Amino acid sequence: MKEKFKLGLIQMITSRDKSIAVGKAIENISQLADNGANLVVLPEMFNCPYETQRFPSYAEPEGGETWQKMQQIAIEKKIYLVAGSIPEIEAGKIYNTSFVFDPNGNQIGKHRKIHMFDINIENGQYFKESETLEAGNQPTVFETEYGKIGLAICYDIRFPELARLMVAEGAKMIIYPAAFNMTTGPAHWELLFRSRAVDNQVFTVGCAPARDYSLGYISYGNSIVVDPWGDVLGRLDDTEGYLLGEIDFNEVRQIREQLPIIRQLRNDVYSTKLK
Amino acid sequence: MKEKFKLGLIQMITSRDKSIAVGKAIENISQLADNGANLVVLPEMFNCPYETQRFPSYAEPEGGETWQKMQQIAIEKKIYLVAGSIPEIEAGKIYNTSFVFDPNGNQIGKHRKIHMFDINIENGQYFKESETLEAGNQPTVFETEYGKIGLAICYDIRFPELARLMVAEGAKMIIYPAAFNMTTGPAHWELLFRSRAVDNQVFTVGCAPARDYSLGYISYGNSIVVDPWGDVLGRLDDTEGYLLGEIDFNEVRQIREQLPIIRQLRNDVYSTKLK
Repeated sequence: MKEKFKLGLIQMITSRDKSIAVGKAIENISQLADNGANLVVLPEMFNCPYETQRFPSYAEPEGGETWQKMQQIAIEKKIYLVAGSIPEIEAGKIYNTSFVFDPNGNQIGKHRKIHMFDINIENGQYFKESETLEAGNQPTVFETEYGKIGLAICYDIRFPELARLMVAEGAKMIIYPAAFNMTTGPAHWELLFRSRAVDNQVFTVGCAPARDYSLGYISYGNSIVVDPWGDVLGRLDDTEGYLLGEIDFNEVRQIREQLPIIRQLRNDVYSTKLK
Repeated sequence: MKEKFKLGLIQMITSRDKSIAVGKAIENISQLADNGANLVVLPEMFNCPYETQRFPSYAEPEGGETWQKMQQIAIEKKIYLVAGSIPEIEAGKIYNTSFVFDPNGNQIGKHRKIHMFDINIENGQYFKESETLEAGNQPTVFETEYGKIGLAICYDIRFPELARLMVAEGAKMIIYPAAFNMTTGPAHWELLFRSRAVDNQVFTVGCAPARDYSLGYISYGNSIVVDPWGDVLGRLDDTEGYLLGEIDFNEVRQIREQLPIIRQLRNDVYSTKLK
């Protein structure tokens, strides 16, 4: 199995105009692919402002317009594409959903955010995603020619159980399209990506919208890639930009030989299981 | 219930001479108690060099000499005492064990390190605790007049499952007598204490031996206290010293109201359970 590939992350400002947002995403994907990216990641809610009241009107079904455009660009550029997330509608319910395509345009993964972002911090951020969204209830791991990759969305990262379940299924990297804010971002963003990486000895990836002070919810930005030892391989600031670099899944095995945490889990004492 | 108390951590160089090491611990405990500490914590293996081949000869049974001296000073100074850890022998087996006493000298907690520290890092630290030690198999939470406190030892911190189990039992603080080294200390020490605090919204405490380059295993030091938001309340460097400060368990409730992670755990999707 090839274990090396080129990973690209796109940190962009989203737009209230969906066609502009999607067009911008496609342009950025093309550029990264032309620069050698094999796997490209978009931010959370890349085709919709991150505002609860807008999710219903922006929502599309699986196979809808945005989905089709993402499939098309994956085929055209022959890349794996983790298409950030969009509001997905099914049977009248709306989810925060990430679709994944392989270089042939097959949908090889689909994650519906499991943990609703409902917080109320004193003198800080308030948000209640569950006002308009439903929660998913399945961990998501997809298979690539380089190895297995876990997928979850933003607030899902706060729950170490979910990361463990993905790693138990063989994930060597966990990708989180995400949009932390100006309260939780400075406090916890890097800490969470580094600690999920170190605890599970996997690569972690956070791909965020760029910061836009004109929006109701201000993204922290700071898209990030962390290696299985917990070192930050790349991190953006708050502005638009991208990260592009080589990932070697062989490092997961190396770190696990030296510090054999996963093998040392005391499964005879405790375990984390799906219900 | 009183929720505020004064916490004291002792970072000291241990000695190959057990009576010197224990005497030094007692002197430091007395000093912190005289300065108002209600709960005092000692480092991992405070009465024995951290070298596998020495554990058997330094080992004592529960109720042995070191145990008695710790009980006595807890009574004399009317404090809770988390007596770091020592090599404990029972039925011919040796454990890395932490004993906890209340101000009346009752043993209210006892933790045997669950995860053996067996690592082999390229160009870094090698250690194989399981050469002479047996692993415990019980999470430990003890009750104080201020609230419940979890207790684990050093390498145990790398396993988020264990922290979750202690928190599920009501722990508002997790104390880890610990001795990271010059490879894993700079890389992961603060990260682990901050991430266990943030994921579980509890205080975390790491109490380490001071650094001594003449020993076979060189402790990183850097004893640390972190609050439930992940902020570092206090941190030492590599030399001998102590941390003394007020802890307010009310902060645990406040943080959990604002960012209700513990309530938002998807126990319908996954769970971490004792076997």
